[in-house]
Amino acid sequence: MRQAGRYLPEYQETRKKAGDFLTLCTTPELACEVTLQPLARFPLDAAILFSDILTIPHAMGLGLSFQEGEGPVFARPVRHPRDLSRLAVPDPETELRYVLDAVRLIRHELHGRVPLIGFSGSPWTLACYMVEGRGSRDFQHIKAWLYSDASTLQGMINLLVDSVAQYLQAQAAAGAQALMLFDTWGGSLSTPAYFRFSLEPMKKVIAHLRSCPESRDLPIILFTKGGANWLEEMAVSGADVLGLDWTIDLGAARSRVGSGVALQGNMDPMALYGAPEQIEQEALRILESHGSRAGHIFNLGHGITPQTPIEHVALLVDTVHSWPG
Amino acid sequence: MRQAGRYLPEYQETRKKAGDFLTLCTTPELACEVTLQPLARFPLDAAILFSDILTIPHAMGLGLSFQEGEGPVFARPVRHPRDLSRLAVPDPETELRYVLDAVRLIRHELHGRVPLIGFSGSPWTLACYMVEGRGSRDFQHIKAWLYSDASTLQGMINLLVDSVAQYLQAQAAAGAQALMLFDTWGGSLSTPAYFRFSLEPMKKVIAHLRSCPESRDLPIILFTKGGANWLEEMAVSGADVLGLDWTIDLGAARSRVGSGVALQGNMDPMALYGAPEQIEQEALRILESHGSRAGHIFNLGHGITPQTPIEHVALLVDTVHSWPG
Repeated sequence: MRQAGRYLPEYQETRKKAGDFLTLCTTPELACEVTLQPLARFPLDAAILFSDILTIPHAMGLGLSFQEGEGPVFARPVRHPRDLSRLAVPDPETELRYVLDAVRLIRHELHGRVPLIGFSGSPWTLACYMVEGRGSRDFQHIKAWLYSDASTLQGMINLLVDSVAQYLQAQAAAGAQALMLFDTWGGSLSTPAYFRFSLEPMKKVIAHLRSCPESRDLPIILFTKGGANWLEEMAVSGADVLGLDWTIDLGAARSRVGSGVALQGNMDPMALYGAPEQIEQEALRILESHGSRAGHIFNLGHGITPQTPIEHVALLVDTVHSWPG
Repeated sequence: MRQAGRYLPEYQETRKKAGDFLTLCTTPELACEVTLQPLARFPLDAAILFSDILTIPHAMGLGLSFQEGEGPVFARPVRHPRDLSRLAVPDPETELRYVLDAVRLIRHELHGRVPLIGFSGSPWTLACYMVEGRGSRDFQHIKAWLYSDASTLQGMINLLVDSVAQYLQAQAAAGAQALMLFDTWGGSLSTPAYFRFSLEPMKKVIAHLRSCPESRDLPIILFTKGGANWLEEMAVSGADVLGLDWTIDLGAARSRVGSGVALQGNMDPMALYGAPEQIEQEALRILESHGSRAGHIFNLGHGITPQTPIEHVALLVDTVHSWPG
């Protein structure tokens, strides 16, 4: 999950310098700066590219902006099949060049200290934002579409498969050393709809990445928030690592998926608002639930939030590193 | 799930007559009127008490109001252990009398045509609203509490266990013929936190209901939204029926829980925005996934939403009733 963010005063400062969030994401020097900030504070084991999951629809011309307290909003959401004709797969090296420049700059600045993880929103998650025009609680518009004209929606998802695949391939070519598919909204679907509209498209993206020399050997991480129902199917998606939110017990997840994939997660980010000894206890519970370091990447189960006390993050990193298991 | 609501023009009319939502809930004649409205339109198999899940904290004096487009808001949320001293278990027959009067009136008006289902928010769900003061995406305040002073939070939950138990017992005494525990926010918790703060309290409520002559023999329905992780544990909670949201496959749920409990659910309410033939197809998929009528109560996986086309609801009821399985 994103390590940088509003909980760090140095982030706030860079953000102020940028003026707005979108400028922060689209200016490689600033994106590089905030990517490296958490690493200057904490002895983390990897860097995570600072970017937004909506760069692809932004490049498609949907008119992205960020409203204070509301999150991303698209001025021109995709509501009708006719809107699809104005969508095209963005060329990463031109239309998303700012992301690739950030990747190159971060790699240069990291000097090989830790690996850099690149990422993209999943096709389904991008489609949700593109159709709803903003975050949603019930996804009324895209689901009305799904349950009335699935084949047209499938066409849009296919376009997003190509877009995400080329975007992640380009991140790999620019220097990303692991790639993550971020499926924020797959967990809003029924089981057959998840398989068709979220997991299958991600499998196609993974298959593409496996076929390209730049990305063939990179670890691929698949994360569906609220996806505990479908771990067995995710485990055979071709991903090397499954990201888990905090609702599932890590040991139970390990039993279900066997030893073929690594597991990443899964502390509730809200636990960082707790008391120090309980943060430690919660981290140890998770580490012990998996039982061994091998095959487990400790992480929060979702993004870190703005009021998180910095010293609690430091304590967590220290607890994980000093665990003898 | 609530059958009445804004998708019905007759509901809109009663709501206008009431002036505001809280008046609609607290006036037995109006609550009775909207409870019966869906039954006049559709050949449903049960009536669901029209009420709000926050009647208990309202009776505790937290200052409930409903803001347009935002949902429930408490003027005096519970943020500090010292706030707990002002909370007491409400006496249902005096402080929540409007609900019990509605139950008695509805039973009278139903003339035994169909059974009436009463309900309450679960202790955890009530606690979430009481501490956050409104709906929340990340439950920062209550989780900060959970991860820093669990025993004080436990005290609050215990008070809610007693409140919910007495409230549901009183609904049974007033004539409710089945009782539902509505755990909207249990799915936001880690596995151990769910067991301790959501499931255990619900088990205590159920045990109380089993010990009272009024409620001993009534079917009890337990619904945790996003609770697919924990079906096995819910199945031995003492509940007769488990409510399921739409994310889990019903047949898979049946395999996991065995034959000891009935299952209620689980169509995505958003599917009702689809095309008629696909609504039918989705309903049949769910019916066939369970495979037999015995032990399955067809339902939506969550509440019906305001723009749902009425004729699609009619089609759904008809599809379920005419299924030959």
